[in-house]
Amino acid sequence: MRLDCIYTRARLATMAGPEPYGAMENAAVGVRGGRIAWMGPASDAPDAEDIVDLEGRWVTPALVDCHTHLVFAGDRSREFEQRLAGASYEAIAKAGGGIASTVQAVRKAGAADLAAETLSRLDALVAEGLGTVEIKSGYGLNFESELNMLKAIRSLGLVTGLRVQSTLLAAHAIPPEYDGRADAYIDEICLPLVKEAAREGLADAVDAYCEEIAFSPEQTRRVFSAAQSAGLRVKLHADQFSNLGGAALAAEFGALSADHLEYTDAVGVSALAEAGTVAVILPGAFYMLNEMQKPPIDALRKAGVPMALATDANPGSSPVLSLLTTANLACTLFGFTVEEALAGITREGARALGLHNEIGTIEIGKRCDLAVWDVDNLAQLVQWIGARPLHGRILSGEWA
Amino acid sequence: MRLDCIYTRARLATMAGPEPYGAMENAAVGVRGGRIAWMGPASDAPDAEDIVDLEGRWVTPALVDCHTHLVFAGDRSREFEQRLAGASYEAIAKAGGGIASTVQAVRKAGAADLAAETLSRLDALVAEGLGTVEIKSGYGLNFESELNMLKAIRSLGLVTGLRVQSTLLAAHAIPPEYDGRADAYIDEICLPLVKEAAREGLADAVDAYCEEIAFSPEQTRRVFSAAQSAGLRVKLHADQFSNLGGAALAAEFGALSADHLEYTDAVGVSALAEAGTVAVILPGAFYMLNEMQKPPIDALRKAGVPMALATDANPGSSPVLSLLTTANLACTLFGFTVEEALAGITREGARALGLHNEIGTIEIGKRCDLAVWDVDNLAQLVQWIGARPLHGRILSGEWA
Repeated sequence: MRLDCIYTRARLATMAGPEPYGAMENAAVGVRGGRIAWMGPASDAPDAEDIVDLEGRWVTPALVDCHTHLVFAGDRSREFEQRLAGASYEAIAKAGGGIASTVQAVRKAGAADLAAETLSRLDALVAEGLGTVEIKSGYGLNFESELNMLKAIRSLGLVTGLRVQSTLLAAHAIPPEYDGRADAYIDEICLPLVKEAAREGLADAVDAYCEEIAFSPEQTRRVFSAAQSAGLRVKLHADQFSNLGGAALAAEFGALSADHLEYTDAVGVSALAEAGTVAVILPGAFYMLNEMQKPPIDALRKAGVPMALATDANPGSSPVLSLLTTANLACTLFGFTVEEALAGITREGARALGLHNEIGTIEIGKRCDLAVWDVDNLAQLVQWIGARPLHGRILSGEWA
Repeated sequence: MRLDCIYTRARLATMAGPEPYGAMENAAVGVRGGRIAWMGPASDAPDAEDIVDLEGRWVTPALVDCHTHLVFAGDRSREFEQRLAGASYEAIAKAGGGIASTVQAVRKAGAADLAAETLSRLDALVAEGLGTVEIKSGYGLNFESELNMLKAIRSLGLVTGLRVQSTLLAAHAIPPEYDGRADAYIDEICLPLVKEAAREGLADAVDAYCEEIAFSPEQTRRVFSAAQSAGLRVKLHADQFSNLGGAALAAEFGALSADHLEYTDAVGVSALAEAGTVAVILPGAFYMLNEMQKPPIDALRKAGVPMALATDANPGSSPVLSLLTTANLACTLFGFTVEEALAGITREGARALGLHNEIGTIEIGKRCDLAVWDVDNLAQLVQWIGARPLHGRILSGEWA
């Protein structure tokens, strides 16, 4: 078999197999048709059109950010400033701040503007080795603007070279025109959107925010049932500020992931484990909101629930554009090991998107999506905040 | 007066004057001989050899990192990894870890290696608008290696174009060969080093670590007295893990700054205020060490003590190479306002180095050291983690 390319003299962190990090020293990776077609010791590498010497650098799977709200318009940094200067959340909300201000700005923007505004945010993630990113809608909150967001997300997949997964999150918040009428919002907006997004192929999954301040478990169920009927997998913002049994609800629907989980109890953890649902941990929001209740990491670990990490990048509660800093937050605040943190932004991130057969590890048959690093030690990637360790990215076998 | 250059159509955050951020909209800055020679409305700008349109961008003073340990050798990321995997500090220390491993690596390295290894770390800070950085010795802990560190620091000032301030921190830790003989270490190594560093012009200031696990107030006094005799200003690692009266001790010697201050009490705060000593707050170490005791920010604020912020960049307790993330940590963890945080990494950072007449604000007569940003709002600089908002740096009036 003739290979298109060999990347040789790499220290591979395959994130697969029994070794810590699935490490293979002095290894080579052969590419054919954008996929990994050969792996082994550099000295055994077969010939190829093109041979690239990685000079002993560490190579991981390209990073995966499996939970973001990167498409938005407007700016909420003034609220951040006002809150620190002593303004209350109430005063800010009364002045039109909070998510309402983002919704207002998104409704005014076209899909093209939304996509354009997102590019520089993606650039920051790309500069740290991003290969795949999930982006949610959820700031339009009406039929047209939610579709605009999904179109912006799809267009980013076309123009950036990244793998972009699109998630419909119409059930993110109750828009002002449905104040006090959450059920009507579900019936009149969310359920038709699920159908339409599926019909147009604009969403890869459907998400909802199940919380006292958002949607009830029963309302969430109706959204999830519609998603299942439309053939779409589901994800859930679960148990962030209170325990409404979100994790178990997600598991009941065979969700790809249950995200946040600060208040998830033992029942929820068991349900996730049984369903094979990924726990997506979002330390950026925990940190930025000065939360005290930590997600049950040790219980999740003991139950064998796969744990992914993501930035939750959004203009309010998690203004974070660094997966490496997210990994550091998970270690420092939640006691992740370095290997768990790296798995969280590669292998388990892929699993949370249902893409674990395609990406997330370095294995034969998978897409050749790699991040090449200038570090002596993998732990340096997670230990340092603000370092710029990326040497380069390889997507589908080519330098990106 | 003919100007060398005009930077026009800027939104200046001068960090001077009564307006928030000392803001001047639609302004211009004129440069002559590397210094700011003219400021005013863009429409009134005089002619110049060169006119640069900043297109309405926000411009702050170039950033100042006034407390770092950026020159080191070796790697302690494996300790970070081992600790998260459950190893105790004791076990790591017994295996030769901790500061001892950095000292061992630094003693093996030459000054040229030390400087070379530091370049990529400086690059990360530069990519966020750095203009001036302080770097301490303190990992050599013998006569020759401390001087090597100072030479490496001076050489970085020569080759990087940055303003680099050099601080002698021989009294950082007690080296193994002086175990149990801290006084002898002070007499035989630290005091001669103060003299030699002054004689060779290798240090701009002298620092010490006054703490139960390091040097006593009395030992610190002897180092400070030697510094004063040699004509060098002092700084102090004070009250980080316990209250030994470090802040008051620093004030007694008219220190440029007292740094850390988690355990500083009301007496210490008053002493700093009276002496005009800058409080250098280091949230990176607080965060990475999972500390609980916060520095007395509100008392410092009320007493009118100038507060600087710095990365404390070092391979153990504060592996942080981002001043913007440091500003975010100060806001999120310690309740800094955004304006205090920006002042902390510009104006007050300069003051902590005794350079406030030269840099740190945008004012006539000062060095024209500027950071130009792609943000709509200054608060975005501090709100976002991992964003890459820098458009460019101007040092001594020229793009750097």
